[in-house]
Amino acid sequence: MTVWQLVRAIWTSLRCRAAVFVCIFLITVYLYIIGNQNKAHFNGYADRPVLYIITATYQRYVQRAELTRMCNTLNNLKDILWIIVEDSTEPTWVVSNILNNCGVPFIHLNIPTPSSEKPKANEPFWFRPKGILQRNLGLQWLRQNLILGRNKGVLYIADDDNSYNLRIFEEMRSTKRVSTWPVGFAGELPWEGCVTSRNRSHIVSMWSAYKPERPFPIDMAGFAVNIDLILKHKHAGFD
Amino acid sequence: MTVWQLVRAIWTSLRCRAAVFVCIFLITVYLYIIGNQNKAHFNGYADRPVLYIITATYQRYVQRAELTRMCNTLNNLKDILWIIVEDSTEPTWVVSNILNNCGVPFIHLNIPTPSSEKPKANEPFWFRPKGILQRNLGLQWLRQNLILGRNKGVLYIADDDNSYNLRIFEEMRSTKRVSTWPVGFAGELPWEGCVTSRNRSHIVSMWSAYKPERPFPIDMAGFAVNIDLILKHKHAGFD
Repeated sequence: MTVWQLVRAIWTSLRCRAAVFVCIFLITVYLYIIGNQNKAHFNGYADRPVLYIITATYQRYVQRAELTRMCNTLNNLKDILWIIVEDSTEPTWVVSNILNNCGVPFIHLNIPTPSSEKPKANEPFWFRPKGILQRNLGLQWLRQNLILGRNKGVLYIADDDNSYNLRIFEEMRSTKRVSTWPVGFAGELPWEGCVTSRNRSHIVSMWSAYKPERPFPIDMAGFAVNIDLILKHKHAGFD
Repeated sequence: MTVWQLVRAIWTSLRCRAAVFVCIFLITVYLYIIGNQNKAHFNGYADRPVLYIITATYQRYVQRAELTRMCNTLNNLKDILWIIVEDSTEPTWVVSNILNNCGVPFIHLNIPTPSSEKPKANEPFWFRPKGILQRNLGLQWLRQNLILGRNKGVLYIADDDNSYNLRIFEEMRSTKRVSTWPVGFAGELPWEGCVTSRNRSHIVSMWSAYKPERPFPIDMAGFAVNIDLILKHKHAGFD
């Protein structure tokens, strides 16, 4: 008896073919649900805005330790794209290795800061801002690869030496224009950020000790921007 | 027509009751699978050894930032119990708050270091070991709450200011007696740890600059111990 004959014998001996149809239907439904569960795990929920997280990084002793820790943090999130931009002439092995083993979807870019812009030996460490060219290259990538109105999401600049409470990422996800929140241990203060009016409807002042004369005296980790604003204002950037 | 009559009418009109039985059977199987999936998500796989991670912590400016970052790292693991022991007379609000919002299963203990054992103003920071009483209280908890032969697992001492590659936790999970690996930026060296023979069958020397005369000159983060050894040697501890 061949396999085909066996199947036919079972089929004809079945007292109720409807049961078989119901089985096949339920198994299909089950496989569909399981398939979607895996999709949800790997690609996140399609109806949620994506977090585009730009991280500028540069070679130093603790770079590997800090990027590893940041990878562990971002691994808890769904629907993110980590845009990591190295201050180097070539992508380095250290950063490539961490990204390839991290598990977070990423874009790996690099651009070297010209030596004329690098900190001089006699300057204090905070004198020149770091990561300007790198963050602007991240913005350029977003403008070249996202389409206004189709790609929904939020931009956040996350340096690799910070510590992030996971709730901040979920809070910033609903940013319509710009969100802001206090940052701990920033600019020589226990916290730095916006002071709002009593009913929290508008910002009345900025609480900042480092260069308070800046138009927005706020830490890089203290705000998020809806991606539409980035795509509409094609020349907005860091300087 | 009552609901009951409607159900009876549908039932008697069914041309094949077998299909209904098959439906009920498949739905039961499906619910069983879904139920077990949720269990796997929250409690991990029952056949894997548990990682018991003891962390001694003390109040300082960056404590909240470092514990938050460590929570983010441990949140990527399954089958762990985080035993966090504070150097304080009472459990503090800061640590309780982080643990309650972290999502990692935890035990929160506390024991103050007597003032006679605390670092003096004129001593270098590394002169007295920190966290001894706290780690020993963690060991005591394990000995009081785990049963030799029934509870399988591995002990790891993880300080809150380190950076952990997630792969190390999966590697240490299979520890039969003691595992060891190099630790980066420890004791003033780029790495510290064991040097093995060419065929990796035994340890030939220890690579360490800080107090190399210790019986085991190794960083606290550089080893893991099977829980059976901890439960068998009831008086082994840190000093």
